[in-house]
Amino acid sequence: MKLLSYRVNDKIYFGPKVKKEEAVWDVLSIQEELQVLPNFPATIVQGVSFGMDFIEQIRVLVETALKEEDPNRFKRSFTEIEWLSPIPRTPKNVMAIGKNYADHAKEMGGVAENFVVFTKAPTSIAADEQTLPVHAELTSSLDYEGELAIIIGKEGKNIPTKLAYDYVFGYTIANDITARDLQKKHQQFFLGKSLDCSCPMGPYVVTKDEIPNPQDLTIVTKVNDEIRQNGVTSDMIYSVENIICEISKVVTLEPGDVILTGTPAGVGKGFNPPKFLKSGDIVKVSIEGIGTLVNKFE
Amino acid sequence: MKLLSYRVNDKIYFGPKVKKEEAVWDVLSIQEELQVLPNFPATIVQGVSFGMDFIEQIRVLVETALKEEDPNRFKRSFTEIEWLSPIPRTPKNVMAIGKNYADHAKEMGGVAENFVVFTKAPTSIAADEQTLPVHAELTSSLDYEGELAIIIGKEGKNIPTKLAYDYVFGYTIANDITARDLQKKHQQFFLGKSLDCSCPMGPYVVTKDEIPNPQDLTIVTKVNDEIRQNGVTSDMIYSVENIICEISKVVTLEPGDVILTGTPAGVGKGFNPPKFLKSGDIVKVSIEGIGTLVNKFE
Repeated sequence: MKLLSYRVNDKIYFGPKVKKEEAVWDVLSIQEELQVLPNFPATIVQGVSFGMDFIEQIRVLVETALKEEDPNRFKRSFTEIEWLSPIPRTPKNVMAIGKNYADHAKEMGGVAENFVVFTKAPTSIAADEQTLPVHAELTSSLDYEGELAIIIGKEGKNIPTKLAYDYVFGYTIANDITARDLQKKHQQFFLGKSLDCSCPMGPYVVTKDEIPNPQDLTIVTKVNDEIRQNGVTSDMIYSVENIICEISKVVTLEPGDVILTGTPAGVGKGFNPPKFLKSGDIVKVSIEGIGTLVNKFE
Repeated sequence: MKLLSYRVNDKIYFGPKVKKEEAVWDVLSIQEELQVLPNFPATIVQGVSFGMDFIEQIRVLVETALKEEDPNRFKRSFTEIEWLSPIPRTPKNVMAIGKNYADHAKEMGGVAENFVVFTKAPTSIAADEQTLPVHAELTSSLDYEGELAIIIGKEGKNIPTKLAYDYVFGYTIANDITARDLQKKHQQFFLGKSLDCSCPMGPYVVTKDEIPNPQDLTIVTKVNDEIRQNGVTSDMIYSVENIICEISKVVTLEPGDVILTGTPAGVGKGFNPPKFLKSGDIVKVSIEGIGTLVNKFE
């Protein structure tokens, strides 16, 4: 199932894409009007914590709507909604893995000896198709990093690799936008990685049942239709299972937590001379089976 | 005003300390029973966003209770409540400044060239008087860092130093507990700083009207009554005003955000041989005008 979050009149909604239509099912309105389910969640983060039951609840709501005389009243066309990141607000900072593809580690100065995790403030989260600032007053080296993002669905600590997928709700696409000058200047990556709107994600959370092997996906980043990154998730140094195991040794993971799994080679800093982002650029990150995240910079 | 957060029967409450008594005013119950104020917040983070109006609302509730025949029914003795961190859950990861006292920077290998900010997961937040794990399976170098913590009261971006105090709600005490081995191993500090229960805070938020100058406070950390850190906040390299200005250049600050302002010299790692925490240790961090944060390790 492909789930999205959106806003209409200052209220945040979520729902599944309508099959073969450019529209979303407004499941909160189906539930409100038809009172189908006793405990349907009010937010997507709450829903995610129900795991696969949440998907089943959404299916029941859509099927109930389809039996109504006018099911179209529960559809919202993509043209009338404001898209949000599928998880509009994470309970923790977004976590992210540094240098997780060997070729990218090389272009950034060398492979890390150990597992590197940094965070991006939740205020940096932005949406698919959102126009993003280049922050010219703050940085002259804004860079893109196309990444597969894991959405955690269940609270866990000390999760063994073999059980790691039980804790995954689904996947989305992220662009881990980075001010390279700030990243270097401040030593710790938090500031250089936390500019407002520097973490666009979307367009959908694709539930894990539709991604049988997250280590076998192509990931392509284009800037103005020029291919910059062309990787495969099989090249990750720490796999999705390893990442969940390693982080959860230290930190309690929670439903709605998002972990960015690192970026393949081809970031702007890796070119000579570097190819940093500038006003007018359009960045597209595509991951097989999930879709394409598109953002224009201004 | 000294505000605390606490739990009774799985519900989270907040309220001001009762003057000269070891008890808290249960302001949520005063409001619920007497319906004094139309818009009294349900959580402390929501209240903090009202700034000084929140303090005034609390004063009105307490005065109303005092006019009742039996005001004592709205008091909860400290013996019957479970203390929580005054901000039990921050909207972002707790932010923290590295090497912000020159003497501490020296004992850690040298002064930083630029402003260093890292984060601690909100799952690391713990309470005053809570017994904390030594995490022997994860680290053999658990260390303390007594720190003044800023509680942000108002959303802001690009805050000038001269207006910085307008964005402060109050202050509390934090112990930025750190696994030195993980901090070093993983390069980025997030994992080594985010162990569960590694961010005890409290006992109170002291509102800013009671701390006219946060740069003139003594800060003392004792381990088993041996003085380890004995600093003054006037020694900070980046002052409270500078910290708010610098972070908000990049990150949008929000009500309930917590920023730890760095630790003076005398951490365990600074001794030769190092004096790391072990089971049975009791750490007390005292800051003038705020109180003492006490935690036992086990």
